[in-house]
Amino acid sequence: MKKIAIDAMGGDYAPQEIVIGALAAVKQWQIPIVLVGDEEQIRPLVQAEGMADHPLVEIRHSTEVIGMDEHPGMAFRKKKDASVSVCARLVKHGECGAMVAPGSTGAAVTAGLLGIGRIKGIERPAIATTIPNATGGSVILLDTGAGTDPNEKNMMQNALLGYYYAKEVAGIENPKLGLLNIGTEELKGKPLITKVYSLMKEQEIYPFIGNVEGRDIPTTSADVVVCDGFTGNALLKFGEGLAGMFFTLLKDAIGSGGWRAKLGAWLLYPALSKMKKSVDYAEYGGAPLLGIKGGLIICHGASKRKAICNATRLASKLAESDMAALVERAVAGEAERNGETRE
Amino acid sequence: MKKIAIDAMGGDYAPQEIVIGALAAVKQWQIPIVLVGDEEQIRPLVQAEGMADHPLVEIRHSTEVIGMDEHPGMAFRKKKDASVSVCARLVKHGECGAMVAPGSTGAAVTAGLLGIGRIKGIERPAIATTIPNATGGSVILLDTGAGTDPNEKNMMQNALLGYYYAKEVAGIENPKLGLLNIGTEELKGKPLITKVYSLMKEQEIYPFIGNVEGRDIPTTSADVVVCDGFTGNALLKFGEGLAGMFFTLLKDAIGSGGWRAKLGAWLLYPALSKMKKSVDYAEYGGAPLLGIKGGLIICHGASKRKAICNATRLASKLAESDMAALVERAVAGEAERNGETRE
Repeated sequence: MKKIAIDAMGGDYAPQEIVIGALAAVKQWQIPIVLVGDEEQIRPLVQAEGMADHPLVEIRHSTEVIGMDEHPGMAFRKKKDASVSVCARLVKHGECGAMVAPGSTGAAVTAGLLGIGRIKGIERPAIATTIPNATGGSVILLDTGAGTDPNEKNMMQNALLGYYYAKEVAGIENPKLGLLNIGTEELKGKPLITKVYSLMKEQEIYPFIGNVEGRDIPTTSADVVVCDGFTGNALLKFGEGLAGMFFTLLKDAIGSGGWRAKLGAWLLYPALSKMKKSVDYAEYGGAPLLGIKGGLIICHGASKRKAICNATRLASKLAESDMAALVERAVAGEAERNGETRE
Repeated sequence: MKKIAIDAMGGDYAPQEIVIGALAAVKQWQIPIVLVGDEEQIRPLVQAEGMADHPLVEIRHSTEVIGMDEHPGMAFRKKKDASVSVCARLVKHGECGAMVAPGSTGAAVTAGLLGIGRIKGIERPAIATTIPNATGGSVILLDTGAGTDPNEKNMMQNALLGYYYAKEVAGIENPKLGLLNIGTEELKGKPLITKVYSLMKEQEIYPFIGNVEGRDIPTTSADVVVCDGFTGNALLKFGEGLAGMFFTLLKDAIGSGGWRAKLGAWLLYPALSKMKKSVDYAEYGGAPLLGIKGGLIICHGASKRKAICNATRLASKLAESDMAALVERAVAGEAERNGETRE
């Protein structure tokens, strides 16, 4: 198995939760890892887990860290020894197959773009976020924030990235794609979206089910829903905010509901926590940055061990897949096809 | 008080729920109404409510209806006697101060644009949707679907529309505005949004609190959040979908949770329904189409009597407000100011 580089200094709970989470992935799935960051902080944590001499665990010392408040591009260029930059180099030079990057999304995207590099033919990478649906399954939404102002070509490439990710990494047999729009009819939405609609309808690589309204995301039959990175990011974060709000309202309702509500809540607790689990992003670990040569998993800044453990596994799946090669071939094919049809 | 035109034939539950809801508004707030649609269907419903000779209730017969499946623009031009078209004419000619339009949003927007007409200086109308927040209050999001591809001028006009709506109709003392973006920093997001940010920062009409992330909408201190109609619509519908999904998951969790969960749910029921009420769109009735000369409230196609009753009240508030005049003055002022600053 290919090694996975872990930015042990990224996120709100670094390094402890990051290291413990990554080590859990080593124990559970025998994934070889390279913990990148301040060795003085990392080694004791590895020792505490009794894995100091574990053959699958390496530590790579680095002296710098890119903070949430720094400008990603500038910080990345300046801090050559930042843990996230070192991780990107390990992937670029083939020492690792993928990396796990908690913390600043901007820094992670920059590391992917400048540190690892794009797949030949791909103009922009895209972030693919898996969100739970109402049937206990999930749907992949992309782009959720890498390209905020895409053109139709970018969006068509995102569709390809989403398709091969669903097929090769998420393990969906024959992934169906949908297009996020504000109506279900073909001519709905803004010019960019109607253009993308007709292009998705024309292509012959994946089945296209048509427009998907925001309302239908939790119940859509599509495995992948394509959108621009601005809308996708706003949508995703709104969902986060709503989930939080829902549990707040529930708590308030219980708080003001007297003994009856309190007893009810106590009795209902197991069911509620089961439900909360089903919408817990930590179950998915993180969101891959697709379109770059190696795997990169962006983790929520508030990620704890469980999220990092699952993110490490996702990074490994990505590293072991043929996704990049398949995408490169498909993009080349598309370009050719479009070249012909334009004549 | 100005009369309110009610499209009694619009929406999934027309005419019964529409008529009963509008009549409830007459009873509660003495709002004069004109019920527009098939008199043969409407009159018996009014009689059943014992309001056949009520001085505040009129019926205006119309023979046509615009269906959800029809192309709004074409249908509106073709069907001069459609109930929604007749309502628009009643407002345009000053017989009514505002209209309530359940059913097809497209038909309602077309009726507002072509039937009633824009406020002088406003390029595009905007739909303003009030969404409940985590503190039991609410926030006004606009545009949620009228202009899917706005430029910075359109978005600045939407900000003005949102400000005066919050101040003059929603009754918020000194409304604060925010801009929907994918980060809180000034330079985040796509070019259009950074441009709008700097323009909102410059203007001196309303207080601007800066960027608001999707995640923060339920907790933002902004009274009005400005966004493009594509993102706003996708966001809103995703929220609808999530709320539905949450209650589905809750039901499933209870269903599979055995007697303990069922008893808990029964005990918690009053608290849960109180909570559900706080996120019920029917409480708000509908969303106004802002930027047109008269008031127009767009109602959800599934609106029942409660939503229509509240929508009729909102339409009356809009009709009694000076909003259109204030907006026209503000837009003229802005245009002048920009003319100067450009030199």
